[in-house]
Amino acid sequence: MTRIIINEVGMRDGLQSLQSIMATDDKKRWIDLAYAAGVRHMEVASFVPARLLPQMADAAEVVAHALTFPDLAVTVLAPNLRGAENALASGAQRIVAPISVSAAHSQANVRRSPEEMVEEFARMCDLRSSSGRHDVVMVAGMSTAFGCTRQGEVSLDDLCALTRRVLEAGCDQVSLGDTTGYATPGQVGRTLDAVREIAGGKLQAAHFHDTRGLALANSLVAVQHGISELDSSLAGLGGCPFAPGASGNTVSEDLVFMLQSMGYITGIDLERLIACRELLTHALPGEPLYGYIARAGLPKHFAAPAH
Amino acid sequence: MTRIIINEVGMRDGLQSLQSIMATDDKKRWIDLAYAAGVRHMEVASFVPARLLPQMADAAEVVAHALTFPDLAVTVLAPNLRGAENALASGAQRIVAPISVSAAHSQANVRRSPEEMVEEFARMCDLRSSSGRHDVVMVAGMSTAFGCTRQGEVSLDDLCALTRRVLEAGCDQVSLGDTTGYATPGQVGRTLDAVREIAGGKLQAAHFHDTRGLALANSLVAVQHGISELDSSLAGLGGCPFAPGASGNTVSEDLVFMLQSMGYITGIDLERLIACRELLTHALPGEPLYGYIARAGLPKHFAAPAH
Repeated sequence: MTRIIINEVGMRDGLQSLQSIMATDDKKRWIDLAYAAGVRHMEVASFVPARLLPQMADAAEVVAHALTFPDLAVTVLAPNLRGAENALASGAQRIVAPISVSAAHSQANVRRSPEEMVEEFARMCDLRSSSGRHDVVMVAGMSTAFGCTRQGEVSLDDLCALTRRVLEAGCDQVSLGDTTGYATPGQVGRTLDAVREIAGGKLQAAHFHDTRGLALANSLVAVQHGISELDSSLAGLGGCPFAPGASGNTVSEDLVFMLQSMGYITGIDLERLIACRELLTHALPGEPLYGYIARAGLPKHFAAPAH
Repeated sequence: MTRIIINEVGMRDGLQSLQSIMATDDKKRWIDLAYAAGVRHMEVASFVPARLLPQMADAAEVVAHALTFPDLAVTVLAPNLRGAENALASGAQRIVAPISVSAAHSQANVRRSPEEMVEEFARMCDLRSSSGRHDVVMVAGMSTAFGCTRQGEVSLDDLCALTRRVLEAGCDQVSLGDTTGYATPGQVGRTLDAVREIAGGKLQAAHFHDTRGLALANSLVAVQHGISELDSSLAGLGGCPFAPGASGNTVSEDLVFMLQSMGYITGIDLERLIACRELLTHALPGEPLYGYIARAGLPKHFAAPAH
């Protein structure tokens, strides 16, 4: 039986793209409920200036709350050295830096070219080391790894070249992100195989969006190609501004259902995870909630694999 | 490059579960548009008493229209001998009989036990032969092959036993149907492998519903396990009455997008297929249309494989 880590990113990737701002207490409650459902990996905040992302202004407080659960792996996003300083100060155990393969997306997202972003990431890794926090895991979140709404196709050569550079910069883990919902199953398999040649065991994670309905199929292929950690978001929170009406991240509940149906261990109680949606209904009134299994219900006699 | 047949079943499986009745002219127009988009396999009608399914009262006329396209493979559904008589008279080239593995579903659907339905199917196959229509392909549509909302789990042993019996009854093709949206990817692979042991090359087709969001993932695994024909429905028409709010059949446009992205040949012009949805908007006002690719649009630089 293989264990697959579900990294709930709703509190970060989900919330940051919404108009509404979730109250800090609701974020804490969400973490509590997800933890109670068995989720042990969460990306809970982003350390960016509050004037740019007011949704994340309470990052330090949210991280502090998440850290009250001793066996919860707490990840945050930081797009630059300043963010990494704050992330390290917060006590987060894992820091993801968004490294876009697409120059156009990189410029729009972090106002740096991919090369400049790798240099910043190297400084972030150095800071981690010089601050004595060797336990903190530095993750290169390879954004637009499967294509870009601005640039169109993103070449596998560019992704591989950039992956080599983030490894030189000192990263501990590489995560391939389908930021734009462009990834397709065959491409996912080919891309993972190629990047694994370069990153080896440092490639464990992938991050898909469901913009074109392929998040589960892509996740399935990712697992077939050795991925053991998948990002997802409760109720698929995080609608993509480039695709009105289409949902955002992989829906956590649907992903857990699929993986459990295939015998993978997630450690998550699916009924309790589905029940977490109730909080979103109240904390984000009017926000559309995505996902199939919550509406259709579990099949009769569905049994999750033993933990 | 592998060719995958897309069998558009919206005119049958899609329409028969809706409250609204599509006008005959709209059905013909739909066939015209789908044909123009490159669809060469369609299940266009069901031969059942009009008082039970008024949506299908014009079956003979719709089949006659479909047959005006010489290279269109025209399939119909017939649940009994009487239906098969009408289907043969209509000139349809392929007749699917719904053979439920679940006794409860079989009784509800055709008022016969699975065993009685196999006997009826044998009479249907005999009728085909005795009427000299050896060109007509008899398909056993194995319903609830992956589980049943009434019965719960459906055992693979039961499916295999019933498959042996339909082969003895004279069937030319076996299609595995996930009538209830219960199928999950691992199960699809195991089931196909087991049934192929029995049916060999007669197992070519599968039919999924998207009730739990797994239609594309299941289709992907089906193709990985040798399936070369997939049923699907434009805009996912055919919401399942057992799962309010959840969509029905695999969405044709999303399926074609996924398969083409993987290099499979479908012969379908995806932009034109997506444009067919316009007809549904007018012909079925208020009916929800499902699917991702139609809303999100094709990725920049997306290129379908050459026909």
